[in-house]
Amino acid sequence: MVVSIAHLGPKGTYSEVAALAFAEGVHRAWDLRSYANIDGVLAAIAAGDCTFGVVPVENSIQGSVTVTLDRLWQLQGLQVCQALVLPISHAILSMATSLETVQVVYSHPQALAQCYNWLQEYLPQAKQIASASTAESLQHLKGEPMAAAIASRHAAELYHLNAIAHPINDYPGNCTRFWVVAKTDVDLDIDGGESGDRYTSIAFSLPENAPGALLDPLQVLADRGINLTRIESRPTKRLLGEYLFFIDFEGDGDRADIQDTLNELRSHTEILKILGSYSIINLSNRGALA
Amino acid sequence: MVVSIAHLGPKGTYSEVAALAFAEGVHRAWDLRSYANIDGVLAAIAAGDCTFGVVPVENSIQGSVTVTLDRLWQLQGLQVCQALVLPISHAILSMATSLETVQVVYSHPQALAQCYNWLQEYLPQAKQIASASTAESLQHLKGEPMAAAIASRHAAELYHLNAIAHPINDYPGNCTRFWVVAKTDVDLDIDGGESGDRYTSIAFSLPENAPGALLDPLQVLADRGINLTRIESRPTKRLLGEYLFFIDFEGDGDRADIQDTLNELRSHTEILKILGSYSIINLSNRGALA
Repeated sequence: MVVSIAHLGPKGTYSEVAALAFAEGVHRAWDLRSYANIDGVLAAIAAGDCTFGVVPVENSIQGSVTVTLDRLWQLQGLQVCQALVLPISHAILSMATSLETVQVVYSHPQALAQCYNWLQEYLPQAKQIASASTAESLQHLKGEPMAAAIASRHAAELYHLNAIAHPINDYPGNCTRFWVVAKTDVDLDIDGGESGDRYTSIAFSLPENAPGALLDPLQVLADRGINLTRIESRPTKRLLGEYLFFIDFEGDGDRADIQDTLNELRSHTEILKILGSYSIINLSNRGALA
Repeated sequence: MVVSIAHLGPKGTYSEVAALAFAEGVHRAWDLRSYANIDGVLAAIAAGDCTFGVVPVENSIQGSVTVTLDRLWQLQGLQVCQALVLPISHAILSMATSLETVQVVYSHPQALAQCYNWLQEYLPQAKQIASASTAESLQHLKGEPMAAAIASRHAAELYHLNAIAHPINDYPGNCTRFWVVAKTDVDLDIDGGESGDRYTSIAFSLPENAPGALLDPLQVLADRGINLTRIESRPTKRLLGEYLFFIDFEGDGDRADIQDTLNELRSHTEILKILGSYSIINLSNRGALA
């Protein structure tokens, strides 16, 4: 049976690059399916239409992809089973071969933000127009030499466009972390990358509804010598000033000490959700793809 | 001398509503000036073109306004001198008087997201188009009865439009917190609202570059019985997995115990930035404005 891998589309997004890299570690025949937005990817997993879904969760410049965190909190029966870290290297693409004719630049708002200084310096007069993804921005370029888009060089090849300048990111260390999501009851049967290190991600709300109460769960983790790698707050959407917390830490959820820690955390949290345990595949040595 | 108050424009944004409410407490003659984006508002303060700037910092549904946090970390010589909490109550505005003719809905992406369920139910066929602000979306409505926009009823009055339905938010408790920013050396001379409670906001990076090190500063605050009201992490933009933290807590920075706490925090942080101390004006009793 072919394993379907869902990702944010259309063809040419950074999510597709991450999905292709993930597919290399799948032990069966696979195909990629692109969806219009992150909700669509996660809904496809929940409905059983696809086995895996690759969704962005954090960018080193812009921070969290909040829709991914919010939906993983709301949806039931899903697990994070793999993380991928992809260097993001933006190019400016066009039918034109130089910047001189460019009067409008399309891209995803995060990509426009990540090239803010470059755009100020080289295309200060160009109008910036937001699109739903870096790849969708390419749809505007056909037969329009006054238009350019910010996307990957991978996308330039796919769509036969000129990469006029590259890289144009304001911050050179730009990376995006993706999570691969599957149903909790699926047989994973995937390679976890080179590294044996495993991480666990959890999310919780607090019984006292005050960020001061955050100290208790953090103390539980610190007392057991568990190393946090990330903490993020999100609004509960009930009251201003009431938060959920998303925490990543080192250690696999199957380990006895981690299970003890999770059990202890239950008494210091209102709702505790274990998002999954996974290894991280670093794609920085595959920069040519991006 | 007239005190200029900068806000995100054009006329009719929720930022303008917040700026008008703040202006009531300014003891001198004032005028409002609108800027195209948050960067423009903060730059106007830094350059001395305006005395005060009103910027959104957090929404109860969408979470932090990350550009505000990132710029306040980067810019020097600014202070937060007032907080305002405004209920966000969206209306659907149009030249038309009923929904039947509406085929396209313009608004800021956050406003479209906040009315997601309402739009699915009442305007499932309408095309949704993003604009830079709720007020900018109104520019598309002139002479176009097939178009509608999501904005405040305040905007409907300003632009002589029909508020066909109100409120249309999916979450009724939708609020946005604004910060009023001024130069650190300015003579504030403003009313702090009814409440005497004062809050302090700080931001810091950690010496060990690991979120595990966050426990130390939180412990300093807990040991002194200081009540946190908010904690938020943002990427340092240097490395994936390296964060800044933004923390709000109860107490004025002029209090001796708070000053002691801040001094102790310096030894548990890399860079500690004191963003300001302020009272919070709750605008929920001025709902007619919004």
